[in-house]
Amino acid sequence: MHRSRLAGFIIDCQTEALEAAASFWSGALGLPTRPLPNEKDYVQLGDPADRLHIEVQSVTHASRVHLDIETDDIEAEVRRLEQLGARRVAQIRTWWVMQAPTGQRFCVVRPQSPDFAAGANRWP
Amino acid sequence: MHRSRLAGFIIDCQTEALEAAASFWSGALGLPTRPLPNEKDYVQLGDPADRLHIEVQSVTHASRVHLDIETDDIEAEVRRLEQLGARRVAQIRTWWVMQAPTGQRFCVVRPQSPDFAAGANRWP
Repeated sequence: MHRSRLAGFIIDCQTEALEAAASFWSGALGLPTRPLPNEKDYVQLGDPADRLHIEVQSVTHASRVHLDIETDDIEAEVRRLEQLGARRVAQIRTWWVMQAPTGQRFCVVRPQSPDFAAGANRWP
Repeated sequence: MHRSRLAGFIIDCQTEALEAAASFWSGALGLPTRPLPNEKDYVQLGDPADRLHIEVQSVTHASRVHLDIETDDIEAEVRRLEQLGARRVAQIRTWWVMQAPTGQRFCVVRPQSPDFAAGANRWP
């Protein structure tokens, strides 16, 4: 048995000007920025309602938005998603980048939310 | 004075097989599908925690994920976002498609959430 759920999304910005990118998205979405310690490529956007985990990321590929699925068992979750039709793209640090059968890239990550255990789906 | 906030996101899928696309994303995110009456291009994914408004859409452009900003005054919100550096792309039915200075497309839409009034930001 393992658990997973939608953790949130990352706004991937093809820029080296991470602060300017985060400033735009913070203003547009009305969410304050929360710098992440020891992370030069990510700025968190804090949702006062704690609805989702949202970050702005500096990337070298084309700008996009990608979803994050959080799980307490990365390998089991990746296998579950493969059964649904997704494929593995690359393993980075602790997470897997995957591609949906509909073409979008998304990531399978460790639990991000304080209430992960209460809100996640359980898979046999 | 007008109000706005992040409403959610739409998973744009370049496919005519909307049901199959919605089925994948429903399974992947662990969110049940909620068919929308009179909509042949959209299927809602219902979040039991009502965190965000999420839909899967059949599109003819490349697959992606786009964010929706909900507002009680579309024109005022579009102008506010233009001041932040976004630009108008196209007006469709009741909403505007815009492009962020970081390149992503997003939409400015009418209020989607039952608790919009309580949770939205107020702009002068």
